[in-house]
Amino acid sequence: MSPINTFASDNISSACPEVMDALARANEANSPSYGEDPWTQGLSANLEEIFETPVTVFPVTTGTAANALALSTLTPAFGKIFCHELAHINTDECGAPEMFTSGAKLVDMPGTDGRIGAQALEERIYGAGNVHHAQPSTVSITQACESGTVYPLEEIQAIASVAHGHGLSVHMDGARFANALVTLDVTPAQMTWQAGIDVLSFGGTKNGCLAAEAVVFFRPELVGDFPFLRKRAGQLLSKSRFISSQFAGYLTGDTWLRNARQANAMAQRLSEGLAGLAGLALAYPTQSNEVFVRMPAALIERLSQQGIPVNDEELDGKAVRFVTAWNTTESQVDDLLKVLADHCGSG
Amino acid sequence: MSPINTFASDNISSACPEVMDALARANEANSPSYGEDPWTQGLSANLEEIFETPVTVFPVTTGTAANALALSTLTPAFGKIFCHELAHINTDECGAPEMFTSGAKLVDMPGTDGRIGAQALEERIYGAGNVHHAQPSTVSITQACESGTVYPLEEIQAIASVAHGHGLSVHMDGARFANALVTLDVTPAQMTWQAGIDVLSFGGTKNGCLAAEAVVFFRPELVGDFPFLRKRAGQLLSKSRFISSQFAGYLTGDTWLRNARQANAMAQRLSEGLAGLAGLALAYPTQSNEVFVRMPAALIERLSQQGIPVNDEELDGKAVRFVTAWNTTESQVDDLLKVLADHCGSG
Amino acid sequence: MSPINTFASDNISSACPEVMDALARANEANSPSYGEDPWTQGLSANLEEIFETPVTVFPVTTGTAANALALSTLTPAFGKIFCHELAHINTDECGAPEMFTSGAKLVDMPGTDGRIGAQALEERIYGAGNVHHAQPSTVSITQACESGTVYPLEEIQAIASVAHGHGLSVHMDGARFANALVTLDVTPAQMTWQAGIDVLSFGGTKNGCLAAEAVVFFRPELVGDFPFLRKRAGQLLSKSRFISSQFAGYLTGDTWLRNARQANAMAQRLSEGLAGLAGLALAYPTQSNEVFVRMPAALIERLSQQGIPVNDEELDGKAVRFVTAWNTTESQVDDLLKVLADHCGSG
Amino acid sequence: MSPINTFASDNISSACPEVMDALARANEANSPSYGEDPWTQGLSANLEEIFETPVTVFPVTTGTAANALALSTLTPAFGKIFCHELAHINTDECGAPEMFTSGAKLVDMPGTDGRIGAQALEERIYGAGNVHHAQPSTVSITQACESGTVYPLEEIQAIASVAHGHGLSVHMDGARFANALVTLDVTPAQMTWQAGIDVLSFGGTKNGCLAAEAVVFFRPELVGDFPFLRKRAGQLLSKSRFISSQFAGYLTGDTWLRNARQANAMAQRLSEGLAGLAGLALAYPTQSNEVFVRMPAALIERLSQQGIPVNDEELDGKAVRFVTAWNTTESQVDDLLKVLADHCGSG
Repeated sequence: MSPINTFASDNISSACPEVMDALARANEANSPSYGEDPWTQGLSANLEEIFETPVTVFPVTTGTAANALALSTLTPAFGKIFCHELAHINTDECGAPEMFTSGAKLVDMPGTDGRIGAQALEERIYGAGNVHHAQPSTVSITQACESGTVYPLEEIQAIASVAHGHGLSVHMDGARFANALVTLDVTPAQMTWQAGIDVLSFGGTKNGCLAAEAVVFFRPELVGDFPFLRKRAGQLLSKSRFISSQFAGYLTGDTWLRNARQANAMAQRLSEGLAGLAGLALAYPTQSNEVFVRMPAALIERLSQQGIPVNDEELDGKAVRFVTAWNTTESQVDDLLKVLADHCGSG
Repeated sequence: MSPINTFASDNISSACPEVMDALARANEANSPSYGEDPWTQGLSANLEEIFETPVTVFPVTTGTAANALALSTLTPAFGKIFCHELAHINTDECGAPEMFTSGAKLVDMPGTDGRIGAQALEERIYGAGNVHHAQPSTVSITQACESGTVYPLEEIQAIASVAHGHGLSVHMDGARFANALVTLDVTPAQMTWQAGIDVLSFGGTKNGCLAAEAVVFFRPELVGDFPFLRKRAGQLLSKSRFISSQFAGYLTGDTWLRNARQANAMAQRLSEGLAGLAGLALAYPTQSNEVFVRMPAALIERLSQQGIPVNDEELDGKAVRFVTAWNTTESQVDDLLKVLADHCGSG
Repeated sequence: MSPINTFASDNISSACPEVMDALARANEANSPSYGEDPWTQGLSANLEEIFETPVTVFPVTTGTAANALALSTLTPAFGKIFCHELAHINTDECGAPEMFTSGAKLVDMPGTDGRIGAQALEERIYGAGNVHHAQPSTVSITQACESGTVYPLEEIQAIASVAHGHGLSVHMDGARFANALVTLDVTPAQMTWQAGIDVLSFGGTKNGCLAAEAVVFFRPELVGDFPFLRKRAGQLLSKSRFISSQFAGYLTGDTWLRNARQANAMAQRLSEGLAGLAGLALAYPTQSNEVFVRMPAALIERLSQQGIPVNDEELDGKAVRFVTAWNTTESQVDDLLKVLADHCGSG
Repeated sequence: MSPINTFASDNISSACPEVMDALARANEANSPSYGEDPWTQGLSANLEEIFETPVTVFPVTTGTAANALALSTLTPAFGKIFCHELAHINTDECGAPEMFTSGAKLVDMPGTDGRIGAQALEERIYGAGNVHHAQPSTVSITQACESGTVYPLEEIQAIASVAHGHGLSVHMDGARFANALVTLDVTPAQMTWQAGIDVLSFGGTKNGCLAAEAVVFFRPELVGDFPFLRKRAGQLLSKSRFISSQFAGYLTGDTWLRNARQANAMAQRLSEGLAGLAGLALAYPTQSNEVFVRMPAALIERLSQQGIPVNDEELDGKAVRFVTAWNTTESQVDDLLKVLADHCGSG
């Protein structure tokens, strides 16, 4: 893999040693299936300690499944889900939320730096009780955002306040939860239930796991039929310990936070390095482990020829995305900067 | 785990060393995501060698997802899927086939020893073109069956012939494919496409993997929208190599067949041992790695108190299921027989 | 239309004059839309008087929609609906219940004379709370049955008692409600909520309306999201008065009961006449406005050549169905009997 | 009904005499069911003459059902449907398109005067073949628009050209088809298939019928599974003649066009009258039978107190909608103008 392709996405990264070790240990002997194993049984306690509150937790294998299942628990088939127009649920899940909810409608909203605003949300919520309209049901925000930015706590609180004021539930897509957390330097409790989040898609895959996501409910009355919905969606693994043990390795000590800090630090290093290059400009502030940079079309073309992946068309066709991971090194960043500097030089 | 709980199911077994080794190797370095990795790319070639024909392969994480996705590709929302009344898709997937197909109807049929018959199938297929009826679309058989029995090749051929004669597709749920294969002592080609199977759910999880299933298409024209349907179902893993590498370990050499032979041999040893115990009778012939035995209610009660899992009510409430796995040992079987003998003695 | 084709179905009959008159009156002036018109507003009061209890009523245009919407309110996507194997919802709605429920599973049961039995139902309900199983949710019975027979009150009570004992709801498909009612000579209350029916599909179309069906809830707490589900299903007519006014004509005075009595009487006349013909035998007792008669294959063939419709293959291919309606006359019955007698004579 | 409430919507209007007469005639005798009657059989011929091309036609009972069924035939569950943000399918069908398509995504677009633009459409279509994205499948435009405006032929052609260039199908929601047609003064052929429309929801209800809509396919290869989808949706009426006969009355002679001309003329009269009132301004050009007028909030408040319906919040909360119908009279318009003049005078 070229130094450049290293930055294609955090989902190209290997799992970290702590995760692999936990997995190997979980495999040493037979263990009950369908979540009756000690690792799955222990996951709740582990997350309750981290989130400082009782939670109900369901491990699944992909972020798309976590999001779609969470939304399907919160949203009736005739419901509306409000989200940013760049939200992964809106642009990158091929209709999974619609499938799992049996047809709910995503209402996508613009918003600066990948974030929706509380006031804009307030203006989009209407029609409750009107039988002609799909019914406002759920708000979903992504933390860290698809633009690599992060909602400050007060913005989360404001959005949740609007949502709850209208009787809507609030979901957080936390595919890069740890990255946002270490950026804000707050507690998991502060960034979730204390700010009004009702249900969290807690991601591990991008930050050092193989395939480990969890739906975390902070309000037990919202769990509803989740166990049946998960089974019906083919997301109840018979050997559940193979997800749960990843989390055991991921969450023990500060592995998950350490991983995120390294990824974020490398993104900062890259972001700062890019600032010094002629012709380049950050598309968004760098606040987690993603760096979006606007480039002249000629440069994008030259980079493409070199195998640098260009982000897809939805980010308005102008910005190139570079993603760091738990295992990105300073020298990899510097190699990338050198390549870019070389091309900018000839730009 | 007590010697008895060992036989609760093959899904309590650990993964075999070859699988774990392959997984660890696949984790040594970063690799492209969403199936662009070498392991996923190589899976087709591997299965094409095994099946002696071109195939299109999609790895997924659970058997339920494999079945439901396969069926959703073959069956319209207003379609009928014919299956045995004990079929996993009918009894143990909490409506996943109905969800993935957007509402197809499972038509469940009785049949001796867990197998449907070609003649009975012929009689159940009608109404094609009649707008009032859900439309006959797909037949699904399980090999090895939920009763631990195995369809002989000629029965598969007869069923497929009836199905194809009416324009229906034929799906095989191969959650225990390897166990059936070594029982019949035929080639994978003979047991599938040469017998008329169009799409196979190829299971690895129960026979030595962590979580590895694959949907295998033998007729490329049936693949249709599968890639979109899989993504939409949350079954496209970003780090796909972690399923595919399991298959690499599973399928290299004769690991998968060796695993199945061991499981089957232990089931035979158990079955023969049970035959010598008073008051017990096999519910079905033992043809793979599951042994179903009818017991007096009093004995079931005593065993329950000892922690022996009793199979659920759908198997007509009378038979207890014991399942062997790739890592079941002779001494475990003998321990179980001893416990049963002790109880029968006091029966 | 030949004298014989007259008996093809009750859905070939015209609307009765009272219904047409009411429709014409409802059209005399503009009126508010979406159910705010006086006819729709008055329908509840009308049915509350008939059923002697508060009800919540929603008019729709087809029996299939009424059934599927009612079931979708009672049954989650992962639910089971228990019904007779000949039930219209199971055999003649092309998967509408599955569509409207987002994938619920119909569990079809055999049963003498088109009726399920309470004891058989008891034995089929299991698996509640088990995440692997679709969840027992609803029982649906048809009154009058698809076999032309009628559930006695005590059988309805017994079925409802089993259902409620397991926490299931009870739906009645009353496409031929009036025909059953006059057969039993009981009150609408006795045949529904007093016997344990929770929700009724109240049919008018077959008994003298153009297209008028209603979903009637006897327990307000079950109504749930019905208004949204109906709108979403395209069953909220902007000019709702055109269904409701049909009911006004249908239910005023004893029009609906008089219509049913005439249809039933003609069925009895036909049934008795058939009893005297050589080679014919009733397939089911004649208890409403449908007569099923078994005939030698040669006779069926001759009748087919004469344009007599033969019932479809689901009634085991042996019985021919004759249906009477509100406007069937004695001479039409006698004409049919004469044709049959002629053919039997040459049989 | 007050002179003012008369303008609440065209769906409060009665059916015209020609429709009622045809209905009465269709009821004179029994007739075959499920579309085998002469009226349904003749509907194709009737529409083929009107559209000057072979068509496949399916009558249904509501515009919502017509739209949702048409879209479900054109769009896979993982598809995208492009429409204006004010489109009825997006705002007023409570998720019916999502239900009938099993979860397709409506991509709503802004656009002047309720119309989407071809260039804007071109920019929104991307991601074909990319498994992460819902797949561009269908474009739906409304003629006349929800804003009371009308697409000129060349705009329809341009939109269809973009759509077809990307392999998408084009649907027209013609709930007010006749009103647009007489405005443009073109032929039905010119406004549909000759301009690139593939499937039309042909509305009769708002323009003089009771409840009569039809899905009209101009390309037989797109019909696909429509008959099954309609039956499954509860939209196949057993007594189909009661929809089809309405069309017979509606389409014979120039009833439908005469009705539309009257409605449009009354809208013009109203629009011109409003232009002379102080403080009022048209929100959109008046091009069919809907007039949208912006008013000071104080005036809206006073009108509300008088029982004048204010349009819902989606039209940005500022414009009041007045709708004329086939039976709106000059004196009704003048009465309304007088009421408004009185209020404006005191404004």
